[in-house]
Amino acid sequence: MRELQKKIIAFRDARDWKQFHNPKDVAISLSLEAAELLEHFQWKSPEEMKQHTQKHKDDIADEVVDVLYWLLLLSHDLEIDIDKAFDAKMKKNQAKYPAQKSKGSNKKYTEL
Amino acid sequence: MRELQKKIIAFRDARDWKQFHNPKDVAISLSLEAAELLEHFQWKSPEEMKQHTQKHKDDIADEVVDVLYWLLLLSHDLEIDIDKAFDAKMKKNQAKYPAQKSKGSNKKYTEL
Amino acid sequence: MRELQKKIIAFRDARDWKQFHNPKDVAISLSLEAAELLEHFQWKSPEEMKQHTQKHKDDIADEVVDVLYWLLLLSHDLEIDIDKAFDAKMKKNQAKYPAQKSKGSNKKYTEL
Amino acid sequence: MRELQKKIIAFRDARDWKQFHNPKDVAISLSLEAAELLEHFQWKSPEEMKQHTQKHKDDIADEVVDVLYWLLLLSHDLEIDIDKAFDAKMKKNQAKYPAQKSKGSNKKYTEL
Repeated sequence: MRELQKKIIAFRDARDWKQFHNPKDVAISLSLEAAELLEHFQWKSPEEMKQHTQKHKDDIADEVVDVLYWLLLLSHDLEIDIDKAFDAKMKKNQAKYPAQKSKGSNKKYTEL
Repeated sequence: MRELQKKIIAFRDARDWKQFHNPKDVAISLSLEAAELLEHFQWKSPEEMKQHTQKHKDDIADEVVDVLYWLLLLSHDLEIDIDKAFDAKMKKNQAKYPAQKSKGSNKKYTEL
Repeated sequence: MRELQKKIIAFRDARDWKQFHNPKDVAISLSLEAAELLEHFQWKSPEEMKQHTQKHKDDIADEVVDVLYWLLLLSHDLEIDIDKAFDAKMKKNQAKYPAQKSKGSNKKYTEL
Repeated sequence: MRELQKKIIAFRDARDWKQFHNPKDVAISLSLEAAELLEHFQWKSPEEMKQHTQKHKDDIADEVVDVLYWLLLLSHDLEIDIDKAFDAKMKKNQAKYPAQKSKGSNKKYTEL
């Protein structure tokens, strides 16, 4: 992940784009790319989704990377240690959703 | 990244949640978490954003991880090789935005 | 619609909030409220959605109004005549999706 | 508003599209159109936004209508009385944000 982050920042620095990258606009970008990814699954039944994702796998992968791109750039600029944050969050998730209690249930933790 | 992906899938399998994880709902989750991240930067001037991101760094890191979580889970389920897709996309970006032509400009590639 | 718009602007002016309402942050608000509305339908089968929307009709109505609120405020600030824009857009939609050609089809106009 | 709603439903019925319009996909549409609207204000300083919104007023109006379209369609399908819901919500807003207390402040009601 750090390697990808380095490539992103090198790409940016070669274009002198840091001046445009305030967190608000970066987070907007992230949100817009998430919408483009979501668009792939809209109006589709489970069967249609399956066919669509096989046929357009590269397009979907492109959108996944677009989201990741802004996520890593934002993390870099805000000096967020993703690995550390990931472990902290997973611990919280485990406390919220104990395996036994939440097994096979789609309920929110507030309703478990 | 693959290691984080493994942890996410192990977490899911321990709860038997795969049955709920169709790509449409997973992509909705991703989009909702991106919105929660964006919310942190709303109604704020550059100066206020700076103060807010310092004060709420852990909360923001949490939201970053939530986005990453769904992104890695979706990639896993759709069998997307993120590293490969990342390199392919960066090549496209380099072609769209040649360093010299786009240096210091916030124009879209269609307007360069 | 104009009446609702007047109420929204009166509410804002009584609080002296116009100073915060630049189009970027207002459009972010709109987007965040759309996400909160979407959240109601996530992880739900058609049958579960039906039950949920009956049980939580007032909550969903609240979110609908939140979206409308920002939409009307933004239109006001950008001096957009919604009725006129609506008619213009419906004409475009009719040209894009001729009734006969698109009847019973969920295809995009580019694929019809 | 009811008149616009009638036009939307007539447009849909002429194309036999009700079969595709479950609340989840409709709410996704709403969310995607909100993202397209937001895109107009991204990466722009206040001055650039002003110029852009003047130059692209019709395009922005189009996106506003797209959001409204799905909002009115969803409200119709869920039998939400928008006018009634609007008045109920404005009362809540007035209670949350008393004019005197919130005058000139961009704080959330939880922080007032």
